[in-house]
Parts: sequence; C-alpha cells; structure tokens
Amino acid sequence: MWDVAEEMKAMLVFAEHRYYGESLPFGEDSLKDSKHLNFLTSEQALADYAELIIHLKRTIPGAENQPVIAIGGSYGGVLAAWFRMKYPHIVVGALASSAPIWHIEDLTPCGLFMKIVTKDFKISGPKCSESVQRSWGAINRLSNIGSGLPWLTKALHLCTPLTYNDIQHLKNWISETWVNLAMVNYPYASNFLKPLPAWPLKVVCRYLKNPNVSDRALLHNLYQALNVYHNYSGGETCMDISETIANLGTWSWAYQSCTEIILPFCTDGVEDMFEPHTWDWKKYSDECYSQWGVRPRPSWITTMYGGRNISSHTNIVFSNGELDPWSGGGVTKDITDTLVAITIPQGAHHLDLRANTIFDPAPLMLARSLEIRHMKQWIADFYGNSGGQL
Amino acid sequence: MWDVAEEMKAMLVFAEHRYYGESLPFGEDSLKDSKHLNFLTSEQALADYAELIIHLKRTIPGAENQPVIAIGGSYGGVLAAWFRMKYPHIVVGALASSAPIWHIEDLTPCGLFMKIVTKDFKISGPKCSESVQRSWGAINRLSNIGSGLPWLTKALHLCTPLTYNDIQHLKNWISETWVNLAMVNYPYASNFLKPLPAWPLKVVCRYLKNPNVSDRALLHNLYQALNVYHNYSGGETCMDISETIANLGTWSWAYQSCTEIILPFCTDGVEDMFEPHTWDWKKYSDECYSQWGVRPRPSWITTMYGGRNISSHTNIVFSNGELDPWSGGGVTKDITDTLVAITIPQGAHHLDLRANTIFDPAPLMLARSLEIRHMKQWIADFYGNSGGQL
Repeated sequence: MWDVAEEMKAMLVFAEHRYYGESLPFGEDSLKDSKHLNFLTSEQALADYAELIIHLKRTIPGAENQPVIAIGGSYGGVLAAWFRMKYPHIVVGALASSAPIWHIEDLTPCGLFMKIVTKDFKISGPKCSESVQRSWGAINRLSNIGSGLPWLTKALHLCTPLTYNDIQHLKNWISETWVNLAMVNYPYASNFLKPLPAWPLKVVCRYLKNPNVSDRALLHNLYQALNVYHNYSGGETCMDISETIANLGTWSWAYQSCTEIILPFCTDGVEDMFEPHTWDWKKYSDECYSQWGVRPRPSWITTMYGGRNISSHTNIVFSNGELDPWSGGGVTKDITDTLVAITIPQGAHHLDLRANTIFDPAPLMLARSLEIRHMKQWIADFYGNSGGQL
Repeated sequence: MWDVAEEMKAMLVFAEHRYYGESLPFGEDSLKDSKHLNFLTSEQALADYAELIIHLKRTIPGAENQPVIAIGGSYGGVLAAWFRMKYPHIVVGALASSAPIWHIEDLTPCGLFMKIVTKDFKISGPKCSESVQRSWGAINRLSNIGSGLPWLTKALHLCTPLTYNDIQHLKNWISETWVNLAMVNYPYASNFLKPLPAWPLKVVCRYLKNPNVSDRALLHNLYQALNVYHNYSGGETCMDISETIANLGTWSWAYQSCTEIILPFCTDGVEDMFEPHTWDWKKYSDECYSQWGVRPRPSWITTMYGGRNISSHTNIVFSNGELDPWSGGGVTKDITDTLVAITIPQGAHHLDLRANTIFDPAPLMLARSLEIRHMKQWIADFYGNSGGQL
C-alpha cells in the first residue's frame, strides 16, 4: 500500500476494528463479558467502515468524489471482501489478501489447514515433517516417566517447571509455533509475529533432519528448532509457553470465534504431522458457553455472506500464497472475470501486502502488478460509469 | 403472485415482518418502549428472511436447490429490493413494486409526493384539486367564528364535537384521506384500505367541481367527497377522525420512521393543493425523541443501502404506477440491463401485485408480462450458471 499510494494518488486510511487496540466502545469494560462484547460482530465492524469512509469523504477536502478501495490481509482480507459484497456503493473494489472466507462450516475440509502446514515442513528440509510427527510421541513417553518432566523442562529451556497437566498445553504451544512459522515463512528476514531469518522454515528444518534418533536427542533438536522462532534475536533466557501471539487482540478474537466466526480445524496424524484431533462442534460450543455464556451460530456467516455462492458480486481480488495454510480456505480459482484469484507460488501469509524489498521473488512482483492492474481498472470503471458521482 | 405461481411451479411464502402482526419477539411487551423495540430494524427483518428461506430450503422436500424470488409492494417492495442487494446468494432476483427506495434524505424533493396526489386530483375531474385547495381556508374561516365548530361537526357528520384544538388534526385527517385515495385509485372496485368503487378519485371529484362557492357549500361538497372513501359501503353513521389506517402496524411503523426510515414530506400550497408545510428535520427529530427517547439516524439508510448508487446490483425490477404518489421516490428509469424500471400508466399503488381481473387495463397486463419475463430470465440464469447449486 505504501509503495503504490503515490503512483495511485491515494490516501491510505487504517481503520481500527472495534474492540481491538484503542477502539474500545466501553473503555476498560469492553472485553469484560458478553454483555459488553455484544456489539462485536463483523456486521458492526463493516458498518463502522461504511460510516468512517462516508465521514472522511464529507470532511476531507477533495475526497468527496474519489473512489475507495478496501484492502486487507487475513481477517482484514475477509472483511475487505465482505465489505465490497455488502457495500459496493462505498468501495469500488477490494483486495482480499490471504482471506480464508471459506474456512467456515463444511466449506473446506477441516484438515486442509494442517496438511498445508505439514507440506510446508516437507518442502523445507528432508525428514523435517517426520521429525515433528515423531516428537509428539517422544514428549508423551517422557511425560510418563519419573524424570521426564524435569528433563523436558530443562531440555526445552522452559521458564517454569512442567507438570503433567501442562503437557497438552506444551504440545499446543509447539503446534502453534509450527503453524505460525508456516504463516510467516517469508523469503527474507522479517518481523511480523517475531523477528525471524529469511525462509525461517528452512532454518527450523536444519535442526529436524533426523526423526530416527532417541526421544531425548529428538527433543534436543526440537528445542533448537523452536528456538529459531522464539529466540531468533537471542535475547530470551527461557521459553515461555504461556505466551501466545502477542498484541493481536486474542481476547476479542476468542469472542468472535465463539459467536460468528467459527474456524473448524482437525488433524489425522497421517496426512499431517500432528497428533490426531477431530473437530467436535458440540465440545467447541460447550467451551464457548462455559467461557462466555454464548454459543456460536453455526451457519450465520454463510447465511450473511453467501458461503461459496458469491458469483453475483464483482471487483474482488483474492490473493493467496501457496505456502500459506490459510490458502486452503481461500479463493484460489477465478469465480468470474471480476472476482479473481491470484496465487503466489512460494508465498506465505499475505506476503503481497508487505513492503517491496530487493529480495522479492518474481512471482510476488507479478502478483502485485496484477493487483495494481485490477485496482486501476476499478478506478477507471468508476470514472467511466459514474463520472465520479459516487 | 397467486395468478402466476402455478405456471412458474412456485411455492408462495408470505413472511411476516418482525414486530408486525403476530411476529412479536417480546409478546405483549414488544411495542412498549424503545428498549423492546430495539430489534426492529430493516437489517434485522432482512436477516429474518434470510434465515427463513434457508430454513425452508433445508426442511421442505424438493425446495433445497430451487431458486427464490423476493416480491413485495410498498415497504415490502423496498425490502424485496434491499434483500436482493444484500443477500444475492439467497434470492435470484426481486420484484419491488411501488418501492419508494429514494424517498429518503434529499434523494427526492420532499414536495413531489403531494404534487403527485394533486396531479391525480387534477386529472380526475375539473376543478377538483382547486376545490380541495380552497377547502382549507373554508375550514380555517369557519373554525374562527362562533357557530363554526358545531356547524363543521354537523356538516362533516363527525362522531364527536369538534373543538378548536382539533382543527389541525381534522385537516390532517382529510389530507390523509386524499393521499390514501390517490394510492388506491384502482380501475375497478376494490377493498385494500377501504371498500371503494372503481376509479374512486373520479367519484370523489364529482363532488368537487365547484371551488367558487360559499365556504359552507364547499364543505357540504367536501363531506360528500370524504364519504366516498370513509363510507362507501354506507354502513357508517358518522366520521371518526381519530381513525387512521387500520391494521397496518402503525405503531411499529411509527418507531421505524423515528429511527431508520425517515420519509420527508412537504407542501407549498402552490404546486400542490395542500396547506404549505415545510419539512423540519429538527422538529421531527425532537418529536421522535419525546415519543420514544430515540432520535432518527438521518443518513443511515443511504449508508447501508446505497442511496442512488445501486448500479452494481443486478436482477431487480422496480415497478411503479404513474398515479401512485410513492412513484416520486421510486426507480422509474432503468439503471442497468438488470436493474429495470417498469412504469404503469394509470396505475396506482402496487396495482401490479393485485390479482388479475377482467377490468385490468392493457398497460397493466403488459407490465405483469414483463415482470414475469424477467423472473423467468432470472430462473433460467440460475439454472444456467449454477446448475441449481445455490
């Protein structure tokens, strides 16, 4: 966006989603309970954007008759696409980068996400996914012997001594690490979720070449691999497994995932490198109920936004990186002439939205130029059709 | 709808709008105060329809892969159009009959509605609109003389003695009568708001041929004219000016007109036959506040539904009767190939949605056949494009 704004004579506006960051409708109480969180829905967020854009057009000199394009990545990409679908009179088009609009209900197999994570590990180093696959058993076996827990605490450099009850959480934390690495497996050093080297999965996989070693040797290697993600800067003295993705509004997101935006995940341990885990709607709903006193609405998002039946809309570019596990629930084939998919080989999560670098691979540059071409077409159509009367 | 359902192999579903009829979310308390009325919005009503249609498709044998068309008249027509705009994945098209989607904000001059009412009177009999125009002064003059009020009570056959404070209400009630007559000025005897003869305005205007008579003579004629509307069946012994349009959910509508759907009206007494009355947004808002404790959102409907910028939508037929005062705020010109306007000469309010009769004028039959042609096209496109996978 920064790189093309000047050429497009564009003003960039970053609008914070309600209930995230500083946009708290009830101040400190906003996230307190479901009563205060009641106004946290995607529909309300889209309405905020509608009001904001109209307000900006009315109050910023010269903005009134200008076309607007919605741009977003990940959930922001989903919102960008939905915004164009619901408010086509306000934005002339949308760039929805890595937007998993179909990672809901049964629109996408629940195991696809973790299969893509596994594939990313497979192609990042020999025996890499096998090593991860074997590590769960190693952890399980060690957690069942007397000296295993203190040994694991020390071998993995954990900040607090591991108890038997922590084992599932430890494995979840490790899984999340692998998922995050697959998402930010960028071709150059970056700092999106964490500071990381170029192609971090390749670096990780250097430590995971030998699945067929002893449990303890495997877990020593696993520690080195985890360390690439959690301590690339070298400043950490221990691994804090209570840590999750920082500063991304996890609490608000947890509420949204317990109401509207339910993302089914599952693993089978065969087509993926994780321990088998089925998707249990009932259990998920019960957990939401015990945490918030609310239950998710299973099919509301599809009812509201159309699921796979979106062909009557226009002017949305869906871009996806082939490496991105979220691409499984994304639009990766053209739907119509104006609902188009751009796939970026070797691309991770919304790589196209990152700033230009001298390390950008050719397919990435091609994808960006295609996106810009579409945006210019939307703008041209806007002036051609409406004479700027939007 | 009844006449073409069999030919189209259609199931007809009449879905009651929330907060109307028996669809009361809080039972008897539903209309009590703004707290209970808080869920009465057009967005919520549309969401109800979305949920209902999906539910019906899932539960009625054979319904699952069938295309659905939204049909409505008046506010129902507005909803039909909005529904296609917001849920194009659920309905393949919409027939919006006499849907004044632009009778909001400043999208339509506030005086146009009453100008059309006046025009209807003009063409329904010589000096008819002039007679109405003169009647206000006659009432005003009589209300200012000692014997005037009892005289008016008797001359107009009012059920309760008129006081000076009732005069404005009396005039409003008379105005509403003329407006309603313009709306239901059908070419055959009908019973929509009231039992009425064919072309009731022509019958009314037979009594309003002489504007230049004495005040009292004029008001005797006015009584005869009012009687056509209020007592065509002959069963009434007096005129009840406390009566407004019965059974149309006026209380719920009043709330909607004080929150989302604000319909600006004005008159100038020159281009129309009414007493001059400006549109005063502030006063309107204050009245809403004193009645409900809520204030209208002046531009929300335009923000939500696009105002005049709806060209990116498809498959909506907007039909309007040329005589219908609501046609002023309707879509009476084609917007695109698939957003089309059908105008019915000599047509009143959603005449096209009424059952076929042997009295139907040719332009009405033509309009209906055009509407059916569009509906068949939408259905054909649905099967052509999706193979029934909606």
